[in-house]
Amino acid sequence: MTGSDIAAAPREAGGDLVRLRLDVAYDGTEFYGWATQPGFRTVEETISNAWGVILRSEPPNLVVGGRTDAGVHARGSVVHLDVNDARLQTLRNRGSWTAEQAARQRLKGVLPDDILVKHVSRAPKGFDARFSALHRRYEYRIADSVPVRDPLRRRDTVNYDVKLDVEAMDEVAQTLCGLHDFAAFCRRREGATTVRTLLKYRWRRDEAGVLIADVQADAFCHSMVRALVGAIVRVGEGKFTAETVKEILLARQRDSRMTVMPAHGLSLEEIVYPPDHLVGQRAEEARATRSLPGPTSQGA
Amino acid sequence: MTGSDIAAAPREAGGDLVRLRLDVAYDGTEFYGWATQPGFRTVEETISNAWGVILRSEPPNLVVGGRTDAGVHARGSVVHLDVNDARLQTLRNRGSWTAEQAARQRLKGVLPDDILVKHVSRAPKGFDARFSALHRRYEYRIADSVPVRDPLRRRDTVNYDVKLDVEAMDEVAQTLCGLHDFAAFCRRREGATTVRTLLKYRWRRDEAGVLIADVQADAFCHSMVRALVGAIVRVGEGKFTAETVKEILLARQRDSRMTVMPAHGLSLEEIVYPPDHLVGQRAEEARATRSLPGPTSQGA
Repeated sequence: MTGSDIAAAPREAGGDLVRLRLDVAYDGTEFYGWATQPGFRTVEETISNAWGVILRSEPPNLVVGGRTDAGVHARGSVVHLDVNDARLQTLRNRGSWTAEQAARQRLKGVLPDDILVKHVSRAPKGFDARFSALHRRYEYRIADSVPVRDPLRRRDTVNYDVKLDVEAMDEVAQTLCGLHDFAAFCRRREGATTVRTLLKYRWRRDEAGVLIADVQADAFCHSMVRALVGAIVRVGEGKFTAETVKEILLARQRDSRMTVMPAHGLSLEEIVYPPDHLVGQRAEEARATRSLPGPTSQGA
Repeated sequence: MTGSDIAAAPREAGGDLVRLRLDVAYDGTEFYGWATQPGFRTVEETISNAWGVILRSEPPNLVVGGRTDAGVHARGSVVHLDVNDARLQTLRNRGSWTAEQAARQRLKGVLPDDILVKHVSRAPKGFDARFSALHRRYEYRIADSVPVRDPLRRRDTVNYDVKLDVEAMDEVAQTLCGLHDFAAFCRRREGATTVRTLLKYRWRRDEAGVLIADVQADAFCHSMVRALVGAIVRVGEGKFTAETVKEILLARQRDSRMTVMPAHGLSLEEIVYPPDHLVGQRAEEARATRSLPGPTSQGA
């Protein structure tokens, strides 16, 4: 990234704004999800307040690439925010650290230990954490027998009392990939499309025997990942066939046989962006599409 | 295992005793270690009380194969206890389950969610969770840079602010293997030997980049694993050479340069026993050796 790629941000009284990218991980157990809700502990408000403290300013607005519901975790969330560059530079008080490195270190001192800002960097020109994203990747963890359970992973692994057939699950999951109307798997929202491209949906067991779903899409509608997991778990216990799942998808409406799996098995693992010189173009395209109204990245 | 291999246990008023083996995992964060201490929440007392509840009896005595200090975790601990067989059989109230399966299920309902009894089985003849053990295996987890940290693993991973050289650590760690007097790494106890056979000591990074130590010995003296980790971490940051570590070992006394690493990075992963028909013989040998006074399995 060269200097000229740095986001040009509007001036405000007191100096230029600079756009920062944050790479963020959190244990969602004790949060009411990402989005600020008055009276609830949320990830968004906690991070915004921490920036307010270290910059001695009003808490800045944050834009996230993947909103998560209450109890959902993240290992690879991405956020952008615009801050006053002069204030940011005042953080440079240690040797050769950049202001961004200093900010990360200061945040560590202010944030609770269930949120980690892994990286703070200047965003490339035109970067938007939400609209520049190409796709999102989630994982879902299920322990389907007592011996594979681990009390140390109880916060991010769902216990299931029936032994599941991972081969069947993996096979049927893959048939859901492609461009479809996922209305059967989405919580309905007025005026929002439920058409998405599911890029990858695989199931495997890790070395400890825990079932792991790897789910990737351009974007997800609300509760979509947890409903996709619920459908395939039914396959794993022999209650749904490949045909049942196909039927449900093609019906394009919420199905009473559908189960939305618990939040705490789900983690936002990664948000993928194009190369720096294309993030602005990607954001413009996505904004244009979504004003149709098109897909949103909100609420997996 | 045939019927005649089942532990013959002494009779008591009210019926025969049967010896059970428990495979146990726990998140040690909120326990003051394994061993019962009046006024503190311990794993031993919690499990013993749970057996008291399900058997409607006095809480039984437990014998563990690896005692752990406050904050240390376990994924593979092994315990034995003797229970009244008639009382145990009263738990058989569900279909085709054995009394042991029913006990495991009942314990799940009584135990807090930071302890898991993974398996309950009749112990083979002569089995002793402590004295039959051949060796114990521990792991220690360190995140030595911010990007590899995961808030969801903060309970069992130690953060370290210096980037460590895993190749150097792995190389020097292996030189400690063999039969040695590990007094330099042990908290002194009157009359107890500090001679142990370190069977394996390796360092690697897992796929997320977290440093993992794999440490195996016939038995460990108190704080030994955490001191072995402390010495090799010094190697990883370039403060100790292979020669320093050798010197410390050969001095056979506690060294002021020694660091005992924090408890929460440590987990008892496995206790290995001989085949069923040899567990009795192994226990007799171990008891004979240790009355010398020899090594104990207590307090890693």
